[in-house]
Amino acid sequence: MEQKATNIFWHDGDITKADRERVHKHRGVCIWFTGLSGSGKSTIANEVQNLLFERGVHTYVLDGDNVRHGLNKDLGFSPEDRTENIRRIGEVAKLFVDAGTVVMTAFISPYRADRDQVREIMPEGDFVEVYVECDLAVCEERDPKGLYKKARAGEIPEFTGISAPYEAPEKPELVVNTSEETDVRKNAQKVIRFLEEKQYIPAQD
Amino acid sequence: MEQKATNIFWHDGDITKADRERVHKHRGVCIWFTGLSGSGKSTIANEVQNLLFERGVHTYVLDGDNVRHGLNKDLGFSPEDRTENIRRIGEVAKLFVDAGTVVMTAFISPYRADRDQVREIMPEGDFVEVYVECDLAVCEERDPKGLYKKARAGEIPEFTGISAPYEAPEKPELVVNTSEETDVRKNAQKVIRFLEEKQYIPAQD
Repeated sequence: MEQKATNIFWHDGDITKADRERVHKHRGVCIWFTGLSGSGKSTIANEVQNLLFERGVHTYVLDGDNVRHGLNKDLGFSPEDRTENIRRIGEVAKLFVDAGTVVMTAFISPYRADRDQVREIMPEGDFVEVYVECDLAVCEERDPKGLYKKARAGEIPEFTGISAPYEAPEKPELVVNTSEETDVRKNAQKVIRFLEEKQYIPAQD
Repeated sequence: MEQKATNIFWHDGDITKADRERVHKHRGVCIWFTGLSGSGKSTIANEVQNLLFERGVHTYVLDGDNVRHGLNKDLGFSPEDRTENIRRIGEVAKLFVDAGTVVMTAFISPYRADRDQVREIMPEGDFVEVYVECDLAVCEERDPKGLYKKARAGEIPEFTGISAPYEAPEKPELVVNTSEETDVRKNAQKVIRFLEEKQYIPAQD
């Protein structure tokens, strides 16, 4: 394969992840946000996406909105279904990474074994676990979707943090504590700085 | 949202498909190849991808290699599993379309109802069905993976065209006949011309 211009290539075989990364000028990687409901996973992921989009980085966010009602609409919240939910999201994220995308996933993903399984299927370095740490009391106080209230009233069975376990990561690549820092932009920038430092994306001029 | 430069945007809300299409300078769309085993779906899809990649179009190919051993490794070839296989692929393709990608799928996808179901979940115009037409005798003569031979020997149950039905599309957006035209490049260019004519991608200078 011979480079003919800045972002144009002739190609005889199939296009590889490395080909795409060369054209995109950044790496394909999965940023896996995990944390309690209301901790701010989706908000931070979307803010990171906004900042990266401005910089021409190819991004996509997988979250409940586009996955739970589509690909995983046949799954509930039992331990088995949660495991299958995360397995499928991991496989889809892997495809986006292969496509040279900075794909961010924003799911509670409460079980350590499930997250480790996703890490396992990705090439070394392509999986970045971000623990969105937040006190349960703070999440419950925020309760943006009124879910904690319903869970406390017994209307939602197996609700993470109330009636189902959350297993915090033991060695996440990054921790963002949203009880201590409530500014979304600052939390997003912490993720961006990590991506720059580890050379997933070029540092800004 | 205000455009600040050629491919740079400020953004207050979440990034939309339209935002991505504006930056990519082409539309997000699913090109769904369907046809018998050995008809040339995957070969054409990859050739289209090569040609589009040269032109800076964001593409990805979903095929047996990256889906059957990953996302859908829990599925077999019974009618129910084939239906679920296609449903999941359709949902993943929808995510790639939403990400502003020209995503191509290369699966036999023998059942009309399953393909129509995928068309149903996509926004109007985002699903392009390409029938890769090829005489069964020609496919069986090619038999690139030796599957027809095994199927005839009874070693593969429910093999499409031999012991399981293939339902050809009634109104596909495009037909590529690989019995009549065996040149892969020409068949790929037929797909590219269609994408140009329907303004999914800009016509080449």
